[in-house]
Amino acid sequence: MQRVTNAVYIKNNHVLMLKKPKRGWYGTPGGKMEPGESIKQSVLREFEEETGLLLTDAKLSSAFTFVIEDEQEWMLFTFVAQASTGQLLEETPEGELEWVPFDKVLDLPMAEGDRRIIKHAISDPEYVLTGTFYYTQDYILQKEFIDGPSELVAEEE
Amino acid sequence: MQRVTNAVYIKNNHVLMLKKPKRGWYGTPGGKMEPGESIKQSVLREFEEETGLLLTDAKLSSAFTFVIEDEQEWMLFTFVAQASTGQLLEETPEGELEWVPFDKVLDLPMAEGDRRIIKHAISDPEYVLTGTFYYTQDYILQKEFIDGPSELVAEEE
Repeated sequence: MQRVTNAVYIKNNHVLMLKKPKRGWYGTPGGKMEPGESIKQSVLREFEEETGLLLTDAKLSSAFTFVIEDEQEWMLFTFVAQASTGQLLEETPEGELEWVPFDKVLDLPMAEGDRRIIKHAISDPEYVLTGTFYYTQDYILQKEFIDGPSELVAEEE
Repeated sequence: MQRVTNAVYIKNNHVLMLKKPKRGWYGTPGGKMEPGESIKQSVLREFEEETGLLLTDAKLSSAFTFVIEDEQEWMLFTFVAQASTGQLLEETPEGELEWVPFDKVLDLPMAEGDRRIIKHAISDPEYVLTGTFYYTQDYILQKEFIDGPSELVAEEE
């Protein structure tokens, strides 16, 4: 099973976003876990590879199961951070890095599940959100399942 | 990849432990995630199956990578909870349920990683601990890797 980690890095009410060449969709920097890594080791390594920044206060913000039509399901662990060391890369092989203000970030083109995850990381950094996203192979969200603090609170189709 | 969830359920300074027939080792109730489940859906289902109790305030306490010698690695998501509905089972197919006081629970026979996870859940329920445990096939802990709040703080062999 694939496991992916990424981070919502916040500074002065902006989020560091990565604009990927494919479709022009945005996402937050991150990538696949390597064998034996903890989820935090993975996100620190991936984020630094893609941005040049080593996060120093990363904490888990959400853990989601991704069910992709006709593919193996995978898991995404998203961290939130507000501090780092290192020098921000000007260019990265994965795409263009861009500081996007809070009031614009949720309007960017991106996978709908990512939108939900970023919204949560910005608005409630203390609570670890969990759930399941159901996607087509083209990353069109078909259904989402969000756990509440104590039980299931929402299922949208 | 196998994904397992379990919960440290706390009441009056006691933890609900499950004594498993194999070796007489203790653990906290839980089990394998099913396809499409979120980690929280999984722990609520598994905990209720094994104890009769539906946790109503479960929140994530730790997320660990388990590297088992000559086997596939897996992940364990441990929740902590202090409230539930339902009736505690008197017997369960998985083993015997037992309320164990805080001052005795860490002395029980169990896998060393479980000891670390339970200790964390009892002592710091607000922080999500992450790391990697390296085990033999007999669940003898060979090495552990615990992430700190911001970076790696400990590696013991």
